[in-house]
Amino acid sequence: MNYAQEALKLHEQLRGKIEVISKAQVNSKNDLALAYTPGVAQPCIEIQKDINKSYSLTRRWNLCLVVTDGTAVLGLGDIGPEAGMPVMEGKCVLFKSFGGVDAFPLCVKTKDVDEFVNTVYNISGSFAGINLEDISAPRCFEIERKLQEKCDIPVFHDDQHGTAVIVLAGLTNALKAAEKKIQDVKIIMSGAGAASIAIAKLLLQNGARNIILCDRTGAIYSGRQDNMNWIKNEMAAITNPEGLKGSLDDVMRGADVFIGVSAPKLVSQDMVRSMNKNSIVFACANPEPEIYPDDAKNAGALIVATGRSDFPNQINNVLAFPGIFRGAFDSGACEINNQMKIAAAHALADLVSENELTPDYIIPAAFDSRVAPAVAKAVYEAAKKTCKCRKI
Amino acid sequence: MNYAQEALKLHEQLRGKIEVISKAQVNSKNDLALAYTPGVAQPCIEIQKDINKSYSLTRRWNLCLVVTDGTAVLGLGDIGPEAGMPVMEGKCVLFKSFGGVDAFPLCVKTKDVDEFVNTVYNISGSFAGINLEDISAPRCFEIERKLQEKCDIPVFHDDQHGTAVIVLAGLTNALKAAEKKIQDVKIIMSGAGAASIAIAKLLLQNGARNIILCDRTGAIYSGRQDNMNWIKNEMAAITNPEGLKGSLDDVMRGADVFIGVSAPKLVSQDMVRSMNKNSIVFACANPEPEIYPDDAKNAGALIVATGRSDFPNQINNVLAFPGIFRGAFDSGACEINNQMKIAAAHALADLVSENELTPDYIIPAAFDSRVAPAVAKAVYEAAKKTCKCRKI
Repeated sequence: MNYAQEALKLHEQLRGKIEVISKAQVNSKNDLALAYTPGVAQPCIEIQKDINKSYSLTRRWNLCLVVTDGTAVLGLGDIGPEAGMPVMEGKCVLFKSFGGVDAFPLCVKTKDVDEFVNTVYNISGSFAGINLEDISAPRCFEIERKLQEKCDIPVFHDDQHGTAVIVLAGLTNALKAAEKKIQDVKIIMSGAGAASIAIAKLLLQNGARNIILCDRTGAIYSGRQDNMNWIKNEMAAITNPEGLKGSLDDVMRGADVFIGVSAPKLVSQDMVRSMNKNSIVFACANPEPEIYPDDAKNAGALIVATGRSDFPNQINNVLAFPGIFRGAFDSGACEINNQMKIAAAHALADLVSENELTPDYIIPAAFDSRVAPAVAKAVYEAAKKTCKCRKI
Repeated sequence: MNYAQEALKLHEQLRGKIEVISKAQVNSKNDLALAYTPGVAQPCIEIQKDINKSYSLTRRWNLCLVVTDGTAVLGLGDIGPEAGMPVMEGKCVLFKSFGGVDAFPLCVKTKDVDEFVNTVYNISGSFAGINLEDISAPRCFEIERKLQEKCDIPVFHDDQHGTAVIVLAGLTNALKAAEKKIQDVKIIMSGAGAASIAIAKLLLQNGARNIILCDRTGAIYSGRQDNMNWIKNEMAAITNPEGLKGSLDDVMRGADVFIGVSAPKLVSQDMVRSMNKNSIVFACANPEPEIYPDDAKNAGALIVATGRSDFPNQINNVLAFPGIFRGAFDSGACEINNQMKIAAAHALADLVSENELTPDYIIPAAFDSRVAPAVAKAVYEAAKKTCKCRKI
C-alpha cells in the first residue's frame, strides 16, 4: 500500500482530523440565557472565588494541550510549526479514541526556549495537562523542566516518557522470557536524543546498573570531549560505570540488551552475534529499524521488538499516553511523576500473563482494548498514593 | 426565572460546553497508518512546501481562536483568565451553532499588552482567525492593532466591531423609520470603552457627521484635560465638531440619536424629553439599560433598542460574529476590513423589508435563521472584492 498517497487523500477528504463541537443547546432565548448571558456570569463568579471550580464548570478537566514547535517532527526534522499540524491532529485523534481525552493541537511559532515556555505557560490555565511533542533535543529537556516548574498541571513530553514507559514494560517481560535480571544485564543504547535519555533514566530507576549510551561518536563516557552537550555530560555521570570507550560495534560485544532509538541499519548481524546468549534487541528506529527482526533472530537474538505494526512486539506510544493522561486527569494530579510512569509500565507488562509470554509476545498490541483502562487505573492509583498536589 | 442558579446547574451538569472530537477513524492498523505514522508524514511535507496547504490538510480553515485575558468579562470586570472561561466557551458554542465555525477558547495569564500579543501571535499559525474577547479598554485597541500588524489571519475584537456592525444595521433602519438622514442627525454616545469607540468610528465611516462621545466626566472635546487617554484624545479630534462641553444631560438637548454602551439608569425621562422629535434611543447597557424602553417611549422616543432579549429590537452580537467569521473564512480573507463590516451591517438591515419595518422591528431576532447565512454571504462577497491578501 502506498501510505503516502492514501494518507494525503484521506487528509484532503477530512480537511482536519479533529473538530470542536458544542455540548450546549442554543435553540431558544432561554438556552441562550443559560449557556451565555446573563446566566453565564454565575459560573464565572464561582471560578473567581475558587479557581479549582474551573475543573467542574468548564471543559478544563478533560482538556490536554498537544503542543510542538515543529523542530523534530517524525523523522522529518525541523519542518516548522504549521507543517507539524497533521501529526499533532493525529495525536489528538489517538488521545480521544483511546483515552477519551479532549486534546487540542497547537503549533508555536518560536524556537526560543523561554518564549516557547512563556507562551505555553500563559495558556496553561485553560487545560488540565500539557503533552509536549516533537521538540528537538536537548531543548526539549529544558522546555519540559521549565514548564513543570511554572505550571500547576501535568507537563509530559511523550517522545521521552511515553517511549520510556513502553520500553520498560517490554523489557520487563523480555527479561522474564530470557530469564535474566535487570540488575545483571549489560544494556547498550543507540541514540542520545529525547527518547533514549528518558529510557535510560527510567531503566536506572528500575534497577538497571550497566547502561552504555552511544551516539554517532560512539560510547558516551565521563570525560569524553567530542560531540558532548550538557545532557550527555549528565548522562555520562550516571551510566557506563566501567567507562567503556569505542564504537557502538565495540561496546555491543557481550551485551545482553540492545535498545535503539536512532537510525536505520546501524546494527549488523555480526554485532548481534557478538552479544551474549539469549540477547534482546529493541530496534525502534521508525519506519526503518536499526536491524530487521529476521536478521537479528538469525544472528542469535532471542527477542526482537520494533516500532512497526507489521512485526511482533511493537513499541508504540499509543499504548501509554492515552491511559497515562486519563489516569492523571481522573486523579486530579498536578504532575506525572516517576511512580505514575512505573505503574503504567507494570500495568502494561502485566497484561501479558506468564502463560502467554513468548519471545514474540512481550507487549500487548496497540488495539488491545484492555490497555488504556489498565494503564489509566494504575496511573490513577499511583497518583492517589504519590502525588501531593492533587486538585480533586 | 433565576438565571444564575439555573445556569450554574447547567454548567455543573455539562462540565464544559465544548468538546474536541475526532473526525478520523482509528479502528485498525491501516487506519492508524493513514491518520498517524507513517502516512501522516506526507501531508506534513506538503504543508512544508506550501504553508497555505495547512488550510486544506488540517482543520485550520475552520478554526477560530476565542481569546481573552479576563480583564473585562461581562459586567464583572477583571475576574482573571480562568474565571472568564465560561463566557469564552459560551462564545464558542455560538460560533459553532450559528456559524458552523470551530471555535476554541483560551484564557491568557498576563495583563501585559506585548506579552499577550506575543502569546497569541505565537499560536496564530494553528488558526484561520482570532476573536478577541472581554479585554479592557484602552488596552484592547493596542492589542488588536499589534496583532493585526503581526498576523496574516483576521483579528477581530468582537466587543468593538461586532457591536458596531449591529448598531450600524439597527441605526440604518431606525433612521429610515424616523425619516432622518445619518448626515444630518446629532448623535450622543454614552461610554468611552471598546464598543462605543468602534461604533463611533463605524458611524463616521458611514456618513455620520455629528457624534458627541460622553464618559463619566461628560462630553469629550478637543482640549479637554480631565480623565483623558490616548484613544479619547484621538476620538476628540474626529468627533464633536462644535466642541460641545458639559454633562451628558447638557449635550443630549436637541439630539436625534442616543447610543448608550455604558451603565444602568444614566438616562432620565427628562433627558429623553429634551431630545429632538422622533428620537432614537439605543440603551445597550446590559443587563440593565441606560433607560427602560417604556420610560423612553413615554418620554417621546420613537424607537428604542436594548441589549435584552425580553424587549423588541435586541442589539445582540450573535447577529454578527458567526456570519462575519463564516464569510471571512470561506473567502480566505486575511483581515476583516471596514468594507466587510459594512457589508455585514447592510445585510443585517436588509433582512427587515420596508413593509415589515416598524419602530418595534428594526433588526432581525437572534434566532432568525436567515441571519448568519445572509451576513456570511455579504462578508464573503465584500472580501472577494476588497481583501487583497486572500489565501484561497
